[in-house]
Amino acid sequence: MGLTIGVDIGGTKIAAGVVDEEGAILNTFTVPTPATAEAIVDAIASAVDGAREGHQIEAVGIGAAGYVDDKRATVLFAPNIDWRHEPLKDKVEQRVGLPVVVENDANAAAWGEYRFGAGKGHDDVICITLGTGLGGGIIIGNKLRRGRFGVAAEFGHIRVVPDGLLCGCGSQGCWEQYASGRALVRYARQRAAATPENAVLLLSLGDGTTEGIQGKHVSEAARQGDPVAVDSFRELARWAGAGLADLASLFDPSAFIVGGGVSDEGELVLDPIRKSFRRWLIGGAWRPHAQVLAAQLGGKAGLVGAADLARQG
Amino acid sequence: MGLTIGVDIGGTKIAAGVVDEEGAILNTFTVPTPATAEAIVDAIASAVDGAREGHQIEAVGIGAAGYVDDKRATVLFAPNIDWRHEPLKDKVEQRVGLPVVVENDANAAAWGEYRFGAGKGHDDVICITLGTGLGGGIIIGNKLRRGRFGVAAEFGHIRVVPDGLLCGCGSQGCWEQYASGRALVRYARQRAAATPENAVLLLSLGDGTTEGIQGKHVSEAARQGDPVAVDSFRELARWAGAGLADLASLFDPSAFIVGGGVSDEGELVLDPIRKSFRRWLIGGAWRPHAQVLAAQLGGKAGLVGAADLARQG
Amino acid sequence: MGLTIGVDIGGTKIAAGVVDEEGAILNTFTVPTPATAEAIVDAIASAVDGAREGHQIEAVGIGAAGYVDDKRATVLFAPNIDWRHEPLKDKVEQRVGLPVVVENDANAAAWGEYRFGAGKGHDDVICITLGTGLGGGIIIGNKLRRGRFGVAAEFGHIRVVPDGLLCGCGSQGCWEQYASGRALVRYARQRAAATPENAVLLLSLGDGTTEGIQGKHVSEAARQGDPVAVDSFRELARWAGAGLADLASLFDPSAFIVGGGVSDEGELVLDPIRKSFRRWLIGGAWRPHAQVLAAQLGGKAGLVGAADLARQG
Amino acid sequence: MGLTIGVDIGGTKIAAGVVDEEGAILNTFTVPTPATAEAIVDAIASAVDGAREGHQIEAVGIGAAGYVDDKRATVLFAPNIDWRHEPLKDKVEQRVGLPVVVENDANAAAWGEYRFGAGKGHDDVICITLGTGLGGGIIIGNKLRRGRFGVAAEFGHIRVVPDGLLCGCGSQGCWEQYASGRALVRYARQRAAATPENAVLLLSLGDGTTEGIQGKHVSEAARQGDPVAVDSFRELARWAGAGLADLASLFDPSAFIVGGGVSDEGELVLDPIRKSFRRWLIGGAWRPHAQVLAAQLGGKAGLVGAADLARQG
Repeated sequence: MGLTIGVDIGGTKIAAGVVDEEGAILNTFTVPTPATAEAIVDAIASAVDGAREGHQIEAVGIGAAGYVDDKRATVLFAPNIDWRHEPLKDKVEQRVGLPVVVENDANAAAWGEYRFGAGKGHDDVICITLGTGLGGGIIIGNKLRRGRFGVAAEFGHIRVVPDGLLCGCGSQGCWEQYASGRALVRYARQRAAATPENAVLLLSLGDGTTEGIQGKHVSEAARQGDPVAVDSFRELARWAGAGLADLASLFDPSAFIVGGGVSDEGELVLDPIRKSFRRWLIGGAWRPHAQVLAAQLGGKAGLVGAADLARQG
Repeated sequence: MGLTIGVDIGGTKIAAGVVDEEGAILNTFTVPTPATAEAIVDAIASAVDGAREGHQIEAVGIGAAGYVDDKRATVLFAPNIDWRHEPLKDKVEQRVGLPVVVENDANAAAWGEYRFGAGKGHDDVICITLGTGLGGGIIIGNKLRRGRFGVAAEFGHIRVVPDGLLCGCGSQGCWEQYASGRALVRYARQRAAATPENAVLLLSLGDGTTEGIQGKHVSEAARQGDPVAVDSFRELARWAGAGLADLASLFDPSAFIVGGGVSDEGELVLDPIRKSFRRWLIGGAWRPHAQVLAAQLGGKAGLVGAADLARQG
Repeated sequence: MGLTIGVDIGGTKIAAGVVDEEGAILNTFTVPTPATAEAIVDAIASAVDGAREGHQIEAVGIGAAGYVDDKRATVLFAPNIDWRHEPLKDKVEQRVGLPVVVENDANAAAWGEYRFGAGKGHDDVICITLGTGLGGGIIIGNKLRRGRFGVAAEFGHIRVVPDGLLCGCGSQGCWEQYASGRALVRYARQRAAATPENAVLLLSLGDGTTEGIQGKHVSEAARQGDPVAVDSFRELARWAGAGLADLASLFDPSAFIVGGGVSDEGELVLDPIRKSFRRWLIGGAWRPHAQVLAAQLGGKAGLVGAADLARQG
Repeated sequence: MGLTIGVDIGGTKIAAGVVDEEGAILNTFTVPTPATAEAIVDAIASAVDGAREGHQIEAVGIGAAGYVDDKRATVLFAPNIDWRHEPLKDKVEQRVGLPVVVENDANAAAWGEYRFGAGKGHDDVICITLGTGLGGGIIIGNKLRRGRFGVAAEFGHIRVVPDGLLCGCGSQGCWEQYASGRALVRYARQRAAATPENAVLLLSLGDGTTEGIQGKHVSEAARQGDPVAVDSFRELARWAGAGLADLASLFDPSAFIVGGGVSDEGELVLDPIRKSFRRWLIGGAWRPHAQVLAAQLGGKAGLVGAADLARQG
């Protein structure tokens, strides 16, 4: 099979990209994300049409946040779009006249990294995506494992603190409340409020208030050694690494791949995560250790992964 | 392939059983468990020899507690026997002259239930074994998933309480400290000590002291409505069900199978586990729910599963 | 000394009451609570003027939410009113021409109960107020203990869950997130969402949605045996009683008094709190146990207590 | 009143000291601690007799681990000696012919520091003793506050982690499991086991094994910058400071005094405790902060405090 299109549905824009068998993106086309569920279907079709011009396309893969069913056809529930049992595959197929595969966006990104990024050469890989929230994907035996009903790998919602922080999912203590971009900002704001004298640089990067601290400020300040920023990354890593240790007990992969915006900081975050992972890994003296690798495809992993999943059919 | 032998290494005895393709046990032979690592190899061989008499055996499967490597040949670490990188497959093959497969005992039990017990007809099953500790096994796509290095499915050691109870593994807050037979007894003793007037029946079943309370007393007292015993089962179920909800977020199986000694109590423990599972399941309104089933093979699951894994080669 | 006035600043109204030496309220006058900090001072003066008519008043005591300084003169910080280092005593004295004492409202309520309610006859009493949040007051050696700087007895903000729920105070895991009216409603909504079939009655009392569940519905449903409502009270009691056990380790009082709106339910909530307290009390077999008593003055405790504190000067 | 004797009952020896009104120790006499409860009474009398020679003594104060009743006469329960409702005051008075006051040892130490050590000049002081376990004492309004039944200030047993570590008291998650000398050693051993390459120095100070790590090794290694040792002190401080923040919410003292063997390390442990205290102090921007001071009397605080309490009668 030749070229396929991957679609990434973001909060502000929808990107469609033509992807070849090597994972290279040959062409992209982007449209703004509309406000209503129905208009998003139109926008997806527009993006696909814009991208496919001049290319022979064989299938389309769509990465969407939320629960996607076992047939990879229906979005059962989406957190940010009003999709409830939305037959997305059928609707888009009718518009674009091509076979469509729908996949959870974190699953698609995991597949992209496995096929063309940090996971190449591994058969058993667990990916986590530290973005605003925390998502992930499971590759076992060179296959994406979606669960019986399509909703596996919801790593962000395992409970790491009983009676812990409220989560948008309605539960409490979910991992993504402790290991994600949002958590990083919370750590920084709490620490800056308690000890502003240790956050002089961090506060100066924003508007001077604790509420004005954004993720980019924490990263920048941490690179420059701001104590509160460094400690915030360490706290994030404490939770991320402990969670990876749990996933090692469960899945025992040969590698973990850490992606998402937070991982863009590279070793600033990867190094403490590795240390925390080793700290909490059970039986570490008696077993081979999984590698903890930085993702390589950045924000394109989902698009490339979705395209490749469509190619596989 | 015809008949194989499964071996179950227990704390007090080693049982070998001849198992046919339907999972039926045709013959068993049992020897006491010796104290030293080396003598256990001899004992395994004796048990196999005792069981095989009069049967044409094609292979042997051994279920052993601990980490078994990816080749199913070497016990990397055993908790109760002094095995460290023990080449058990080679040693037993030399004694019995048959192909040998070594498997983690909880994995073997999971496979037994999947093939011949509560898991029949399911493709994706997660088994947990609530015994003294908590073990488990993963079946995805009709295959036992052992991880890249053979040590997957160590469910008992995911961290459910940060800074929680010390575990024999050296870590803290491991699930098996909260959901296991040992945890059940701890719950009962703590409650009986605090409010003995609510544990009159429970205390009367043992020697009258809180330290004298055993697991069988808790079960018996709970069946008769003793408040402390009932509450202890509820506490166990609270943790067991919450953990299953986490496993649902991760694996999304079609069924959970709950085995081990604690599950012998049937609905006394299964019913509250199901309730707790539903209480903590993420996104329960938008997804199909996995069933929570009682194991069917009891203490034979490991032997039967090991035999069947040996048959599969 | 004869009559004094107590003032209670509520979210919707400000009540002033003339109180005699026996704690009896002879006259009350109520005004709406204005929106601005400055207008509230005017409103307090109006309420005092309205109440004092025809009575010879010797002093005024004001109960205010927030931190009150060691001189009982300045509100350092108020959570719901924009008071920051507000010299409330001076301002009100200028308006009403009487000596004024300012006190934290939960301290005032504790004093009221100690003097005229459930605490009569005790020298060492700890009061907790389970209202929307959780407040309290400390009486040791027949004196209200306000701390060196006036801000003691902030029971609601001791940390009972590390990395727990966010609190309005900016911290996490504060006791009032787990034991308060707001917590009760959260417990009920979470449980009703997970298992609506166990909350049929509870849901029918509101608008049928989980978000529509209010505190009064939970109380009413619990009295009628609704499983989710009963379980929600039990969860509240689990946390309330465990916290009282901590306070017993710290203060070792002869009695705890439980007040606030939640305690209006009487034994429905007191009984499980007592059980939980006993469950968690350290060394219970070797020490006398504090009583856990229901408050007797209801919503008037703060007003009566403030008036009496003003009398004591 | 002139001279009194303070008695400190330790695990290996019993020390009696003649103390003057300024807290100076004029003479001491030490005997080994016998094994049986009854023999300890004899040993106390011997120590008192040995110390008093040549001095005019007016009273004796005894500091004892455990619950001491409200009359300061009876040891209700002792953790290390088989005393249950032991009338220690009467027994010792009969032997030595002097008035005797019995006090909890941590209370006595707190009083010593308040009167003659770090607490001089403060009216409201909370002392914590970080020894093998965690004890403490409460001074409010220049009086030692013992609670209604004598068993207040059991700081070590407030619950800081629900479902946390088992404690010798039978409960779980007690503060002393996280902030004490024993906790420090556990932190070091766990970290050294997980990442021995970061504990090279620490391991070299003992016998090379993680089990061989003792408290003195952790202190010595931390002073030299060993990463695991430094991190272990930081973890201890994390819990100690967070607990002090809770005590500030409850008691609002003007100073905390940190004593016990762990505090002998001075700023090595005090500095991170102060930082953690500030991190977790509620409303820190709106209230005066209590000082966190190092104890000054070292291991003599209990003896001196007990003597002074006897003087006060």
